[in-house]
Amino acid sequence: MTEKTYHVAILGATGAVGTRLLSQLEQSTIPVGQIKLLASARSAGTTLMFKGEPVTVEEATPESFDGVDLVLASGGGSVSKRFAPEAVKRGAVVVDNSSYWRMHDDVPLVVPEVNEAALQTHQGIIANPNCSTIQMVVALEPIRQAYGLERVIVSTYQAASGAGQLGWDELVAQTTAYNAGEPVTASVLPVRGAAKHYPLAYNLLPQIDVFEDDGYTHEEWKMIHETKKIMFGDKDSRDVKVTGTAVRVPVPIGHGETVYFETAAGTGATAQGIQQVLSQAPGVVLEDNPAEQLYPQPVNAAGKRETFVGRVRPDLEVDDAFHMWVVSDNLLKGAAWNTVQIAERLVALDLVRVPDTATNPFTTA
Amino acid sequence: MTEKTYHVAILGATGAVGTRLLSQLEQSTIPVGQIKLLASARSAGTTLMFKGEPVTVEEATPESFDGVDLVLASGGGSVSKRFAPEAVKRGAVVVDNSSYWRMHDDVPLVVPEVNEAALQTHQGIIANPNCSTIQMVVALEPIRQAYGLERVIVSTYQAASGAGQLGWDELVAQTTAYNAGEPVTASVLPVRGAAKHYPLAYNLLPQIDVFEDDGYTHEEWKMIHETKKIMFGDKDSRDVKVTGTAVRVPVPIGHGETVYFETAAGTGATAQGIQQVLSQAPGVVLEDNPAEQLYPQPVNAAGKRETFVGRVRPDLEVDDAFHMWVVSDNLLKGAAWNTVQIAERLVALDLVRVPDTATNPFTTA
Repeated sequence: MTEKTYHVAILGATGAVGTRLLSQLEQSTIPVGQIKLLASARSAGTTLMFKGEPVTVEEATPESFDGVDLVLASGGGSVSKRFAPEAVKRGAVVVDNSSYWRMHDDVPLVVPEVNEAALQTHQGIIANPNCSTIQMVVALEPIRQAYGLERVIVSTYQAASGAGQLGWDELVAQTTAYNAGEPVTASVLPVRGAAKHYPLAYNLLPQIDVFEDDGYTHEEWKMIHETKKIMFGDKDSRDVKVTGTAVRVPVPIGHGETVYFETAAGTGATAQGIQQVLSQAPGVVLEDNPAEQLYPQPVNAAGKRETFVGRVRPDLEVDDAFHMWVVSDNLLKGAAWNTVQIAERLVALDLVRVPDTATNPFTTA
Repeated sequence: MTEKTYHVAILGATGAVGTRLLSQLEQSTIPVGQIKLLASARSAGTTLMFKGEPVTVEEATPESFDGVDLVLASGGGSVSKRFAPEAVKRGAVVVDNSSYWRMHDDVPLVVPEVNEAALQTHQGIIANPNCSTIQMVVALEPIRQAYGLERVIVSTYQAASGAGQLGWDELVAQTTAYNAGEPVTASVLPVRGAAKHYPLAYNLLPQIDVFEDDGYTHEEWKMIHETKKIMFGDKDSRDVKVTGTAVRVPVPIGHGETVYFETAAGTGATAQGIQQVLSQAPGVVLEDNPAEQLYPQPVNAAGKRETFVGRVRPDLEVDDAFHMWVVSDNLLKGAAWNTVQIAERLVALDLVRVPDTATNPFTTA
């Protein structure tokens, strides 16, 4: 009996996340029969390597998905909006890294360590959450299971590569210019296409994505709604209160987060108990030994798949309230690895199939 | 009638804060009759300019303070421990920027916008608070006066110069090495003299100062105790709950803080009301217009004396709870300017005198 193999397409293959999708797929357990690399017309013709073989990037068209089983998409919201239904219509399952489909009622939003079961309900599109949300819920879910979770207040320290290769390149160029005493220019950060751009080098920008009318940024709302949807199944769940502030910091790779949280009263949570839970939690590495100056750092997390947690300690004036410091590679667990990990689980659970019903929300749209 | 002038000494004159003490004093309203610059033997002989005249730095000895009226000290804890009482014995009033005297019962800990009245009780030593504490209480005090204050949860984004000129230089050297592809070394940060040092360039270090046994850093405890002492007159005050996490970020100058706070129930606080209060508060500049992408940034705050506040908005799930983003120049309002500002107020209130009593805790020690 021949092992089943999959025809996999990567949509948006040439970006900071796209190239990592390719390398994470290469290292994954997925039996890739055929690989197709898709991008915009501008990037078509580029050659990338997959398992030692050169693969030429093609321009994405609806017909690109004919015969494809599995699409890993990281081409941005408008690309996923257009192409994900086209892929599903042709029988492909799409794991999408853009924000476009995340809040759709028929799209599971999945972090495998937290809500793998949601994959069972997919209709052809599965969404990969926001980078800063993923690492937070990986750390919070085992705590919730052990002690309940009432309230979360997060402050993020987000890396430039969260704004893509262009954001990362801009940070390095600005820093080099600053150190050489040359003029510093900004044309990408804080938000590509926004009216104003500011230097990130040696600076802090408390704006990630655009502002909503209520004064929160879109990034902050993503963390609120996505955390509720992933952990409690409803983007407006009242089972947990979530709020926070998202800040861009002059780091190329690796998001940091101070996560303050309150467990349920009467569950007996202690810092030691939480550390014990985290030390055995899937996808988590506990790095928490103040006496040895051991705590998570972006430079150590870069290139790794895990979420690193340290600085676990109680609020000394409020019962059942704790701090922790969470760091992960935003391009891997925050994007490419979580996407490939979802795909691995789809393969393992034999869910790489589009439900063939007349009511499929994407094929009938 | 001749204007009264003061003989002023700067102790620790050659450091990142010391040189700023000199320039802030130069620009202050204090009528300086004579200036004396003091430092360690190693820095003695250096020449600095004051009001267009060269001044040679002398090695500090107890006798250095003979005839001095006012000492601005920024030589570190052990220097202030030794020399502040020697200065007071000789009739000088000391405004001390080290942490050594801050929690002493007989030492007022002062941010003029918040608790100037505490100056009246001084016995010869007045302490300048921690940099991250100062900018937070400048922003919180007007809110407390208008709406009460029950709870504060802060996450800091602290600049390298908070660890002195050596920390600042190390960040720039590391960043230059990284960008050139050269090896990066660390020998100062996160804490000078600690067992381990880590790069700050392109990284985040969730350790500022040494760890206590309870898992909090000394810096985090400073923010808790100092905030309570400055705002409520007691370092262990139960009138407000304060907690947080202090993180060093790769920025040379300018601390950022996400400050989450709860006002007293029933006082009717709104984001608009808080913005109105802050727009008229002493020492505060409100920079809060999301539609115009206006919010505080370290590169804009550097070199300025004010505390900049933006991103004011309510927690949408918890009553009477709000976020704000606070930025200030840690070397000016966080250190040199607040110190000189205290001295200005001492002069204005005619308090540059050591109480000549047999019970003076410093002269009799």
